Amino acid sequence: MQAQYKEKFDQNAGYETKPEHKERAQAWFKGLRDGICAAFEKIEFELTGTQNSEIPSGHFEQKAWNREGGGGGVMSTMRGRVFEKVGVNISTVHGTFSEEFRAKIPGTSEKGEFWASGISVVAHPWNPHVPPVHMNTRHIITAKPWFGGAVDLNPITPNQNDTDIFHKALLDTCNEHDVADYEAFKKWCDDYFYLPHRAEHRGVGGVFYDYLNSGCFEDDFSFTQEIGQTFLNVYPKIVRLHMNRDWSAADREHQLIRRGRYVEFNLLHDRGTVFGLKTGGNTEAILMSLPPEVKWP
Amino acid sequence: MQAQYKEKFDQNAGYETKPEHKERAQAWFKGLRDGICAAFEKIEFELTGTQNSEIPSGHFEQKAWNREGGGGGVMSTMRGRVFEKVGVNISTVHGTFSEEFRAKIPGTSEKGEFWASGISVVAHPWNPHVPPVHMNTRHIITAKPWFGGAVDLNPITPNQNDTDIFHKALLDTCNEHDVADYEAFKKWCDDYFYLPHRAEHRGVGGVFYDYLNSGCFEDDFSFTQEIGQTFLNVYPKIVRLHMNRDWSAADREHQLIRRGRYVEFNLLHDRGTVFGLKTGGNTEAILMSLPPEVKWP
Repeated sequence: MQAQYKEKFDQNAGYETKPEHKERAQAWFKGLRDGICAAFEKIEFELTGTQNSEIPSGHFEQKAWNREGGGGGVMSTMRGRVFEKVGVNISTVHGTFSEEFRAKIPGTSEKGEFWASGISVVAHPWNPHVPPVHMNTRHIITAKPWFGGAVDLNPITPNQNDTDIFHKALLDTCNEHDVADYEAFKKWCDDYFYLPHRAEHRGVGGVFYDYLNSGCFEDDFSFTQEIGQTFLNVYPKIVRLHMNRDWSAADREHQLIRRGRYVEFNLLHDRGTVFGLKTGGNTEAILMSLPPEVKWP
Repeated sequence: MQAQYKEKFDQNAGYETKPEHKERAQAWFKGLRDGICAAFEKIEFELTGTQNSEIPSGHFEQKAWNREGGGGGVMSTMRGRVFEKVGVNISTVHGTFSEEFRAKIPGTSEKGEFWASGISVVAHPWNPHVPPVHMNTRHIITAKPWFGGAVDLNPITPNQNDTDIFHKALLDTCNEHDVADYEAFKKWCDDYFYLPHRAEHRGVGGVFYDYLNSGCFEDDFSFTQEIGQTFLNVYPKIVRLHMNRDWSAADREHQLIRRGRYVEFNLLHDRGTVFGLKTGGNTEAILMSLPPEVKWP
């Protein structure tokens, strides 16, 4: 899937990046961050289940960082009573790739210059019945601009109703956008979030897209915005379906073990994690994705 | 360090492998496994501290596995009251490397055939004052044979006395063997067990060597045997120095966080782990190294 889209991207004339594109993308990711953080803080207030009721409802704390070489970001993290750990990171960075990495990033072979802005969300809820989730969308500009993103649900014990709600929301969003191909993006997600050594998918999937340049910034940006908005609409619904349910010590134990798969995927396979750590990215922001507690018993 | 030894290895005429070499190496690793398991079970009986006294002393359980393509191994694991999780794995495997991997393994460029036998130990003690440890030694035969190994101590909070005892034992062993260069092997260990994204060493080091082929099987095998024996002599001593000490909830929390570095190293950088998982090795045996419980709070 990746090769096919990369080829299409390479052959595509694309569009010319205007300064306002960067500004608008960056402003969108920041606004989406604010919306997600507000929605998650609201959820924290709504807990009525008995478990964790003694824990005060959580609030996000922000921490800014600067990137040596250009740009920086802001980590927003919350350790609450519904969300054991959730990170919502935004960053806008720019610079020049070393020779070593130019071969790997389209449009950097000549000058190596890049600009990238994006948002990344990873939520690890306390309740084993509430599925962890990941969402990331980004705008990258090298010799050519493109958008990319991923949204995937990672239930501890898959629940068909949640899975259906999640996939349906993404299907509807893709169907409203000519630049999106739901079946392709769903398959890309399944292919990407896979652990060969376990012969297991990390979760129940969602959508994954990259190198999206349809030739029209507005169309691609609009789709990327709605992917973020869809996440913000659908995930809190799924959280509310389960957040007040009781869980047992056995549920917790199973959750801690399943979280190990999340760690294995991110450190062994996730391109953003491995690439970020190897190119001097912000370690704290990158590893914010790791679950708060994990077992390999 | 690696490049230097690899070059030396490539230029070296080596020696001819005899069938008895394989038999003797394999038998040694098996005997060493038995010795280590017996020593660790003995330690389990000796616990006099109050913490964990309610847990019965642990015993190793063995599980054999076969490798598709040739050979197999035996995992020995114990979940006890001194050792929260300890794995002692032996394996003897053979086969043919795919084209993709031949460039990475000396002596496999032509036929791709390999034979490898080894032992791997990873101990994660309960008591945060008792340092986790890793030991691995191996005999590999491709177009040429060689030995390799690593022993390194990974304290939660480094203790200079433990570190000194550990390094001194390895220094003495290296000094008794002309084929060993302590300073080089110590540096190799420091260079290898390093997390660039944390700018931290994984532990306090030890020795690491690879591509050891002095031209004499007996000399190289003898050194490798004594590295294993040294581990078996020195590590239980360090365990006994601390195993009955009390620890606090804060000590445990710190331990769980520091264990995260062990996970990060193994999944991001450890050649054996990454290579093993990508070449269809036994996932359960390879990931036996991961700590039983970890936090990234």
